[in-house]
Amino acid sequence: MATLVSPSNYSPVEDAQTLRTAFKGWGSDDKTIIAILGHRNVHQRQEIRKAYEEIYEEDLIKRLESEISGDFEKAVYRWMLEPADRDAVLVNVAIKNGSKDLHVIAEIACVLSAEELLAVRRAYHNRYKHSLEEDVAANTTGHLRQLLVGLVSTYRYEGVEINAKLAQTEASILHETLKEKKGNYEEVIRVLATRSKTQLVATFNRYRDEHGISISKKLLDQASDDFHKVLHTAIRCINDPKKYYEKVLRNAIKKFGTDEDGLSRVVVTRAETDLKDIKELYYKRNSVHLEDDVAKETSGDYKKFILTLLGKQD
Amino acid sequence: MATLVSPSNYSPVEDAQTLRTAFKGWGSDDKTIIAILGHRNVHQRQEIRKAYEEIYEEDLIKRLESEISGDFEKAVYRWMLEPADRDAVLVNVAIKNGSKDLHVIAEIACVLSAEELLAVRRAYHNRYKHSLEEDVAANTTGHLRQLLVGLVSTYRYEGVEINAKLAQTEASILHETLKEKKGNYEEVIRVLATRSKTQLVATFNRYRDEHGISISKKLLDQASDDFHKVLHTAIRCINDPKKYYEKVLRNAIKKFGTDEDGLSRVVVTRAETDLKDIKELYYKRNSVHLEDDVAKETSGDYKKFILTLLGKQD
Repeated sequence: MATLVSPSNYSPVEDAQTLRTAFKGWGSDDKTIIAILGHRNVHQRQEIRKAYEEIYEEDLIKRLESEISGDFEKAVYRWMLEPADRDAVLVNVAIKNGSKDLHVIAEIACVLSAEELLAVRRAYHNRYKHSLEEDVAANTTGHLRQLLVGLVSTYRYEGVEINAKLAQTEASILHETLKEKKGNYEEVIRVLATRSKTQLVATFNRYRDEHGISISKKLLDQASDDFHKVLHTAIRCINDPKKYYEKVLRNAIKKFGTDEDGLSRVVVTRAETDLKDIKELYYKRNSVHLEDDVAKETSGDYKKFILTLLGKQD
Repeated sequence: MATLVSPSNYSPVEDAQTLRTAFKGWGSDDKTIIAILGHRNVHQRQEIRKAYEEIYEEDLIKRLESEISGDFEKAVYRWMLEPADRDAVLVNVAIKNGSKDLHVIAEIACVLSAEELLAVRRAYHNRYKHSLEEDVAANTTGHLRQLLVGLVSTYRYEGVEINAKLAQTEASILHETLKEKKGNYEEVIRVLATRSKTQLVATFNRYRDEHGISISKKLLDQASDDFHKVLHTAIRCINDPKKYYEKVLRNAIKKFGTDEDGLSRVVVTRAETDLKDIKELYYKRNSVHLEDDVAKETSGDYKKFILTLLGKQD
């Protein structure tokens, strides 16, 4: 379930006008910006953007960028984009950041449904005049490239069928490869990048049954290079995306200095889908409410905005 | 331009009834089947199929399969499917046939637009309960797998931008690999499977300018194994699909015994799009009309049906 609280009655024109007033004068009225945009769903935000453009002949997103700054700006900017377009931006940034961010590419490729991933690929064309797989491929090499290109290019079957025998065979393939640490990567890539998620979860379960340890835990011991890190993320995101996101939040918050990029990414991308479930997992795992941890570790308008998206009532 | 001649006025119900009558008795009235189905466009054929199903509670395609046989049946069957579904069937058959037919996978992947290829992948899900790339990957290995999976999974950018410097760099990559014959296949696969067709044509042109020979001719000397054959097909289909199809037809007809599969595939898949252009290329290249060659090398209902799709007036 979502955390976003948005009204069923709202007026895009009034919102656009209120925002315009908030931009007036020296420094913007950030409280108003948060009160409006932090309480509008994706459709409403697009309507407001359209109304603003029509009335003031100015792109609302561009104006926001010039009015606010830092992590607050970054989070608002991403929040204002349509989901597929936002993911295209996130992937593009991850490609540019290279090594440290490649797991974000795997995250987006593996969490989304086949049609959602495709929408991101379409948005990527529009925005960057390249294909997503083209930019991923041009910036990576070897098995890492093969894995990432496979993950972003796949159009997974989404039926519920499970082939138990196949799960067993492919659990063994994963086991053999991880055991040797430089085993048959090509087969591992084939399995991860082409099988349906339902089938893959059956394979991961089979792995755990046979070896008494989950494949992601096993991989964690070895996740030293980029290839293994991306593999680890892909497996976690296919196996249990909410649990994965909980951990991203936990790491982002516990990190010395806080990882605002990670925090914003999860909150902004999940606020309208399953952030409530992720919050519950967070509480269960950490015995602290996510809002309280966020409140402690962040500050200013950024803090207010993230807490608003987390569903905190004013 | 298309070769198919279809009326603007037709009645799906009447067509369904006429077909039903043609099925009556011992042996079907194939002349009527051809007269109707050989003169209906893709939309009309689907309407007839629907009308037939509604009136007789029977699938027209299944009935056709039981009424006719051999190459005629195969061609009519493929003709009756929607294009994306037909291509899904063609790819599936090619996967099953393995080595001798892998070029068909490359043909379909490289001739279609990004959205058309995607429609084939959707149709493949529906029909086979697997993803297309999954079945391709499970039935191939090594570089051949990487190339084929890359080609079927790509969602190419379709803008007109050309990066001349990139064309030069990547023409060199292609050259180096082909020179060594067991060179840097990974880079060749990356280029072929991710760049836009416009960019690739620029790269191929650059190759010819630099080396005085087209890359597909150069490859022909080396197209001994499956990998090189698939690479050759991919390059030809990206570079000039009509020219490619002309050659498929030429080879199919000149072959001892005639390759009806190849002939039917090109005629059935292109009759509603560019078969007229392909016919003209055929005449230009062979100084014989395609219809005359087809008439000489085929027979019976199959011959009548193919000639009808080729636009021959009764």
